Amino acid sequence: MVQHDPYASRTGGAEAIHPRLDPVVYGGPQPGQAHALNQDQLASFERDGYLILPDLCADMLDPIRRELASLKQRMAGDEDLYTEPDSDEPRTLFRVHAWSSLLDRLMRDPRLLQPVEQILGSSATLMQSRINIKPAFRGKSFPWHSDFETWHVEDGMERMRAVTAWIMLTDNHACNGPLYVIPGSHKHYVSCAGKTGRENYRTSLKRQNLGVPRHETMRSLLQDRPIRAIEGGAGTLVLHDCNLLHGSPDNISADPRSILMFVYNSAENPIVAPFGGLPPRPDYLCDREAAPLQPLPQPLQPQELAA
Amino acid sequence: MVQHDPYASRTGGAEAIHPRLDPVVYGGPQPGQAHALNQDQLASFERDGYLILPDLCADMLDPIRRELASLKQRMAGDEDLYTEPDSDEPRTLFRVHAWSSLLDRLMRDPRLLQPVEQILGSSATLMQSRINIKPAFRGKSFPWHSDFETWHVEDGMERMRAVTAWIMLTDNHACNGPLYVIPGSHKHYVSCAGKTGRENYRTSLKRQNLGVPRHETMRSLLQDRPIRAIEGGAGTLVLHDCNLLHGSPDNISADPRSILMFVYNSAENPIVAPFGGLPPRPDYLCDREAAPLQPLPQPLQPQELAA
Repeated sequence: MVQHDPYASRTGGAEAIHPRLDPVVYGGPQPGQAHALNQDQLASFERDGYLILPDLCADMLDPIRRELASLKQRMAGDEDLYTEPDSDEPRTLFRVHAWSSLLDRLMRDPRLLQPVEQILGSSATLMQSRINIKPAFRGKSFPWHSDFETWHVEDGMERMRAVTAWIMLTDNHACNGPLYVIPGSHKHYVSCAGKTGRENYRTSLKRQNLGVPRHETMRSLLQDRPIRAIEGGAGTLVLHDCNLLHGSPDNISADPRSILMFVYNSAENPIVAPFGGLPPRPDYLCDREAAPLQPLPQPLQPQELAA
Repeated sequence: MVQHDPYASRTGGAEAIHPRLDPVVYGGPQPGQAHALNQDQLASFERDGYLILPDLCADMLDPIRRELASLKQRMAGDEDLYTEPDSDEPRTLFRVHAWSSLLDRLMRDPRLLQPVEQILGSSATLMQSRINIKPAFRGKSFPWHSDFETWHVEDGMERMRAVTAWIMLTDNHACNGPLYVIPGSHKHYVSCAGKTGRENYRTSLKRQNLGVPRHETMRSLLQDRPIRAIEGGAGTLVLHDCNLLHGSPDNISADPRSILMFVYNSAENPIVAPFGGLPPRPDYLCDREAAPLQPLPQPLQPQELAA
């Protein structure tokens, strides 16, 4: 007997807004952990669906940037590297933790992993890592979507128990195509219309069409929830819930917007067969075999990062 | 003998940044005029190339909005009304002062015309009026450009002595595709590459390609001039210089961004044959025969506007 899927989407039915059935924060305060979030921070994440931690990773910027320059060369020609449609310029580098021992260690840094494990209330696995470069002048906008919707339909993530941690590698300001979020939207689930085609990810990473709520749905969600642009200096860490609605406008400024992103799933949240019924997406979008991460005992030191 | 054109652009040469040869503010303080700008406001306009006057037209909002609703119907099918590419929805209404006695009076309101005449140091003529509607969710971005560059090349405006006054008809906020400006950029003139084709305006009003400075030019102009997003509540009046570089990002919010815009030229600034050598654009883009405006003795009252 087929089980009912509470987060069914793109099954050919009408679009609908459903309540979230899962907690947002699974754990609680961890007074013994130096890098854990405090009660206020946890409450803020629970309410808004995201949290901004300025300067948290400022000391890591130079080593990460050097690593990025090196990765662009080492990864050239590999399927993990996506280029701009009209040039060879790298736009997205996937699975960067597998290409870089530095980033592999960084994803286990307690400054990232303690808050993540707190939110997930469990150990975490790394589902996806990437560096996104939104180029100056021609960085394109991205429509509203929930990551969880895609991960559920196309990857088989069972429940809402995943969190994205991203570090700003350049300043993210109001005018360089910042991430727009709708605080509170993570408590609703938009079951979208449409049906997923095979290998949808090949086009959806360039221009998402499916899993994008319709205008009238967005209008109702935005009715009393103003959009917030996530701004911060390079080195800012942002945590956001897997079901937070987000999008972004064009970048017509002279400043690229670059971020390093780790997607953590709870080790207790199974990745099963995709709920959309199609074959799963490639490993670089969802590592289906990832083992629980062991946190580093101490934050990385810049001299280690330089190694 | 052909005279040298100091603002030549799109003549097939290389792109270059030249200094502005004209004043920004031609007049001075007018202590006898109730609605004139003060010394600080004039200095700010001179330095930045624009000025934001919150709430200045707040009492006119309801009558203008009613008029807009009526204009959409009265102008349907006319060449003065541009619709969205994919629907019949109005996007830009041109020559609205000719269609509406209310807006014809508003363009002569001393709250607009006294500051404008002060900046121009002369009487003003109305070159163009329009209402722009940047729709929610699918309002498209516009690349960086100077209006004067187009007006010079395609309309034959001789010198930089024109100012645009626009009233926000909806809130203009950071996330609904606000106007981006580069304060101080009006003191430089970008002579653009390329050559203008016939009836360029037919496509340029949808997506401007010519008269758009190249990335390296923009990078140098933006080097120590941060972008400013012009934000304000409905009813805010903005004045901006004809040569201020501006652009705007997509509007992916649920809030349309609508503005009423009057372009005033100095009565002493001739509109001659277009410097690009092609036939002039239609009247609704540049009224070549406009007579100097007579200011109303008093600001319009909402009850008059309702008439």
